[in-house]
Amino acid sequence: MPAVISLDECRALAFDAFSNAGVSRAQAEATADHITRAEADGCKSHGLFRLPGFIASVQSGSLDPQAEPEIVDAAPGLVAIDGRRCLAPLSVARGRVLLAEKARAQGVACMTLRNSLNFSALWPDIEPLAEEGFVAFTFINSQSFVAPAGGTRALFGTNPMAFACPRAGGRPPMVFDQASSATARGELQIAARDGHEAPPGAGLGPDGQPTTDPAEILKGVQLPFGGYKGSAIALMVELMTGGLSGGFFGYESRAAYSTDGGPANTCQSFIAIDPVRLAGPGFPAHVEALFERLLADGDARLPGDRRLANRARTAEEGITVEDALYATVQDLARKA
Amino acid sequence: MPAVISLDECRALAFDAFSNAGVSRAQAEATADHITRAEADGCKSHGLFRLPGFIASVQSGSLDPQAEPEIVDAAPGLVAIDGRRCLAPLSVARGRVLLAEKARAQGVACMTLRNSLNFSALWPDIEPLAEEGFVAFTFINSQSFVAPAGGTRALFGTNPMAFACPRAGGRPPMVFDQASSATARGELQIAARDGHEAPPGAGLGPDGQPTTDPAEILKGVQLPFGGYKGSAIALMVELMTGGLSGGFFGYESRAAYSTDGGPANTCQSFIAIDPVRLAGPGFPAHVEALFERLLADGDARLPGDRRLANRARTAEEGITVEDALYATVQDLARKA
Repeated sequence: MPAVISLDECRALAFDAFSNAGVSRAQAEATADHITRAEADGCKSHGLFRLPGFIASVQSGSLDPQAEPEIVDAAPGLVAIDGRRCLAPLSVARGRVLLAEKARAQGVACMTLRNSLNFSALWPDIEPLAEEGFVAFTFINSQSFVAPAGGTRALFGTNPMAFACPRAGGRPPMVFDQASSATARGELQIAARDGHEAPPGAGLGPDGQPTTDPAEILKGVQLPFGGYKGSAIALMVELMTGGLSGGFFGYESRAAYSTDGGPANTCQSFIAIDPVRLAGPGFPAHVEALFERLLADGDARLPGDRRLANRARTAEEGITVEDALYATVQDLARKA
Repeated sequence: MPAVISLDECRALAFDAFSNAGVSRAQAEATADHITRAEADGCKSHGLFRLPGFIASVQSGSLDPQAEPEIVDAAPGLVAIDGRRCLAPLSVARGRVLLAEKARAQGVACMTLRNSLNFSALWPDIEPLAEEGFVAFTFINSQSFVAPAGGTRALFGTNPMAFACPRAGGRPPMVFDQASSATARGELQIAARDGHEAPPGAGLGPDGQPTTDPAEILKGVQLPFGGYKGSAIALMVELMTGGLSGGFFGYESRAAYSTDGGPANTCQSFIAIDPVRLAGPGFPAHVEALFERLLADGDARLPGDRRLANRARTAEEGITVEDALYATVQDLARKA
C-alpha cells in the first residue's frame, strides 16, 4: 500500500527537506512548488522521486544552496539569466516576471537561463505565461544521453520542449511538454526500478545494439523520437539552450557533471508572444474552434488533458507515494 | 532523357510563365526566385513541378496577381502581414526586412502572414535571416490533410516548420525544414505520379485503414510523424500559423479552397532572435564545436547537408527537368 498524502503535505515535506540540507528559503520554496505541481499532475518522474537527488547535489557542492540568480536585462526584448548554480525553479520564477513585462511591451520577448541546476518538469515553467495570455515556448537540455539519428554516441540531452497556448472561458491553458528523446529518461529510470521493459526504439545498449532493457539503455544511449525529424528537433533544442544561453551543450554538461545523482548544470530558453496584438481579440475563440474539432475526432486528445484530469483528482484525493520513497522523504524532512 | 537547364533558365522560365499569366513583376520575381532556389537545392517537389498549379490559381481567381501585401508594424517586436492573396514569397521578402530591423533593435521579433497563397519550400524564407546572424524559426500550415494522433479525419495541414542557425567562418547556415506529417504531400504526389509506394505510417486510405498506396492516402488522410509527439508539433504549427495570424486554420483553408490545383490560402509565422546579445560573441564557434561532434559520429548528418551539396552541384551542372514538365513549362513561358 503506497502512502496517500495531501498536496500541502507534499509541499511541506519537500520544503523541509531542502531547508534541512541548507538550501535558501527562496530556492526551497520555488522548487518545492515545482515538485508539488508535478505530483499534482501525476508526473511522478519529476515529483518527490527527484528529492534525494536534489539533496545529494547540495552535499556534493554541485548546487549552490544559498546563491541568487543574476537576471540581466540584455535588450528591450531579451532577458539573460546566469543561474549561478541555483535550483532552476527560482531563476525561472524570478526571470518570468521581466520576460512577461517585456513581452507585454514589445509583443514578444525571449529569455535564456544558463548555469542552472534542473531536475524538474517543464510545463510548470510556461503555464503561468499562458495564464497571463501569452503563447509561450520553452526548451531545455540535459546531460547528453541521446545519439543523433545515424549515430551511436550520446550528443544531445533528452531535450524536452514545451509549448503553451491560452484558452477561452477560463479553461487552463493547453500545454504540451515532451522530450525529443523517444522516451523521457525519468521514465526509463522508473521502468528500470520497477522491472518494466522500455518501448522498442527507445535506445541502444552499450554495445550499440537496439534493446528494450531500460537498464542497458541507461548505460548506452537513448534515441530521438520520430527518426531524423525528432533528431532535428533535439538539435534545435541544443541550439536554443546551450547555444543561445552561452552555457553548456548536453555533452559539456555531462563532462562537467559531479556524478552525485542530482541535477546537472543545464540551459533553458523561453519565448513569449502576445497573440492578441497579432491575431486580434478573436484569438481565444478561434483556438477553441480548432480544439473542439480535434476533440470530436475518434480517440484524438488535447496534449496535457491527462495531466489536467490528474490535477482535478489529486486536489481532492491527494497523491500516492510509494512506501520506500515516502520513508526516504520523511527522513530527509524530519532531521530539522 | 530529362532536359538539363541552367538555374538562370529556370528563373527566366518561371518569371515568364507568371508574367504571361498576368502576375505582377514583384510577385513573379519573388516567386520565380523561390522556385529556382528549390530546384537548386534538389527539392523538386517545390520547384517547377508547382508552376502549372500557380498559373491555375491566377486563372481561377484564387490568387490576386496584381495585389501588394499589407505590412503592419503591430508592436515594437511584431510585424503582421495581410498577404491580400499575393504569392507568399513577395510578402515574406518584403516583411523580412522589417522583421530583421526589429530583431536587431529589440533582440527578438515575430512576424505573422495570413491570407497568403503558398506552394513553396520553407527553408528559403529563413535562410536569409540566419545569413544576417539571426537564429530563426518559421511555421506554415496548409489545407487540412493530416489527422491528429488517435483520429481519422483531416484537421491539420502538413504543417512544416523550419529552423535556421548561423554558422562560423562564412559557412551557409544550418537550416532544417520538415513537415510535421510523416511524409510531405509533394512527395506523395510525386510518388503517385511515378508509381512508387509511400512509406509505412504515411497515412490512411478513405476507409480509415493504413495503406502505402500514395493515391489512396491522397484521397484519405496523412498521419503525423512520430506518433503523438509529432501530432503535438502539428498542433503547435496550427496555433502558430492560423491561430497567431488570425487567418485560416488548415480546415478553414480547405473549406475555402477553390479546387484549382493551385496554392491554398494559408498562414505563416516567423521568430528571429539575435543570439550574440544573449550568448555573447562566442556563439558561432560554440555552435561549430557541437556540429563537429555530430559529424564525427557514424552516419549522423547535419540537416540540410544534402541540399547544400545539391546547391554546389547545380550551380555548376544546372538542373534536370523531366520531359513532360519541361514541355509544359516552356509552353507556359512561350505564350509571351
